[in-house]
Amino acid sequence: MKLLRYGPPGQEKPGLLAADGTIRDLSGVIADLSGEALSEAGLAKLAALDAASLPKVEGNPRLGSPVTGMKNFVCIGLNYADHAAETGAPIPKEPIIFLKSLGALSGPNDDVEVPPGSVKTDWEVELAIIIGTRAKNVSEEDSLSYVAGYAVCNDVSEREWQTERGGTWDKGKGHETFGPLGPWLVTKDEVADPQNLTMFCEVDGHRYQDGSTRTMIFGVQKLVSYVSQFFTLHPGDVISTGTPPGVGLGQKPPVFLKAGQSMRLGIEGLGEQTQKTVAG
Amino acid sequence: MKLLRYGPPGQEKPGLLAADGTIRDLSGVIADLSGEALSEAGLAKLAALDAASLPKVEGNPRLGSPVTGMKNFVCIGLNYADHAAETGAPIPKEPIIFLKSLGALSGPNDDVEVPPGSVKTDWEVELAIIIGTRAKNVSEEDSLSYVAGYAVCNDVSEREWQTERGGTWDKGKGHETFGPLGPWLVTKDEVADPQNLTMFCEVDGHRYQDGSTRTMIFGVQKLVSYVSQFFTLHPGDVISTGTPPGVGLGQKPPVFLKAGQSMRLGIEGLGEQTQKTVAG
Repeated sequence: MKLLRYGPPGQEKPGLLAADGTIRDLSGVIADLSGEALSEAGLAKLAALDAASLPKVEGNPRLGSPVTGMKNFVCIGLNYADHAAETGAPIPKEPIIFLKSLGALSGPNDDVEVPPGSVKTDWEVELAIIIGTRAKNVSEEDSLSYVAGYAVCNDVSEREWQTERGGTWDKGKGHETFGPLGPWLVTKDEVADPQNLTMFCEVDGHRYQDGSTRTMIFGVQKLVSYVSQFFTLHPGDVISTGTPPGVGLGQKPPVFLKAGQSMRLGIEGLGEQTQKTVAG
Repeated sequence: MKLLRYGPPGQEKPGLLAADGTIRDLSGVIADLSGEALSEAGLAKLAALDAASLPKVEGNPRLGSPVTGMKNFVCIGLNYADHAAETGAPIPKEPIIFLKSLGALSGPNDDVEVPPGSVKTDWEVELAIIIGTRAKNVSEEDSLSYVAGYAVCNDVSEREWQTERGGTWDKGKGHETFGPLGPWLVTKDEVADPQNLTMFCEVDGHRYQDGSTRTMIFGVQKLVSYVSQFFTLHPGDVISTGTPPGVGLGQKPPVFLKAGQSMRLGIEGLGEQTQKTVAG
């Protein structure tokens, strides 16, 4: 299933993308794509629906984040060997965790702000894991049973704020609009191997990132288990698993975003995002 | 006003502490202590109520976090000169920001878990700022108008996870139960000078921390303005402003928490918390 949320910011309704490409309204079935609706039982209930019998959503509505009500927007740093190399960082011995402000979460095609004073706003296409069931200290072996599915995430980053302003990386990761997620949550049954998905990110039509989840250092099962040792994971929580090479910081010389540009990014089987950059 | 939330975890109702020491139920007036209820207009509406006319809450209910629905649980690191010294860290040039998992938030007197495998669980009494109104890029001068009030926070920390496991401090700050907040939100009109409040933390009756917000490096107005440059702040968001000297890590030799201990901590005018430590 491809599950999504559509409508104006803060007023999104749950929906699904039917096989015929139409959006079908789920608001008569579930309150939202959060909590229990994301559990294995909740998803099974949605999978049993006849999409053709659900109300068809007309037009071309805005899409929001495909999930809501989460407690954690976890990101993994330097999780692709080649990306670690391009930033000059050593290969991490264990996963690097940081948190993105939940206020950064936005729709997949919403504008991305270049914040006031920013000179190093950068892109990062990432495979996001969406948690379906509360997970605390879970094993690698069991970890996929806590996962609802996957989505595309753009882990937008301000590099100066991230690394040159003291303290943790969080400073550079949490600006409003720095977390486009979607277009949809693709349930895990539709993703045969999350460690073998091609992914890309283009800025103004130039393909900067062209990678595959194959080159992740720590894979999905390891990450869910690992993060659950530190934070209890809740339904709707996001673990964005790091980015392949090709970010702006890694160009020679570095290239950063300005207002008025466009980003297009996607992951095999998970859909695409398109964002315009605007002055924040 | 002293605003609070009472009842079992996840089922808390809003209330206030009346002058006679009784808890009065606010659930007939507001849905919860979140969003609009925390704005200046929302708080003015509550302040105009006659507490004696509100239903009296009988017994001695559990207290939850006094606010809910936030997007950010921001913490400031090393924000007391003496605490920076005791940890061997230099005085920060600008505020150190990190994020606590929202899953860490707990009631002021809830048990605190010593997580499996933890050997360095530590305490930190802190003045928490509670945001009342959305704040983005606000000036120091205006910053207090976005603040609803203040509360006591115990920024419980696992020091090994925080600093010896790679990546950011977030790893050591977000375990479930690592964020007791309360007992109440004290509205800012009742706090004459947030930079002149005594504060303490005791473990098993021994007073380890005995400080004052006077020795903060960056004060409340600076912090609200500063954080709002990086993250948009939302109603109910918490900025916990750092801890004075006397944490376990700073003892010679260091002292850390074990299951079966008790913590008592408080800040002048903001009330006290008491927690038992349990095996996580």
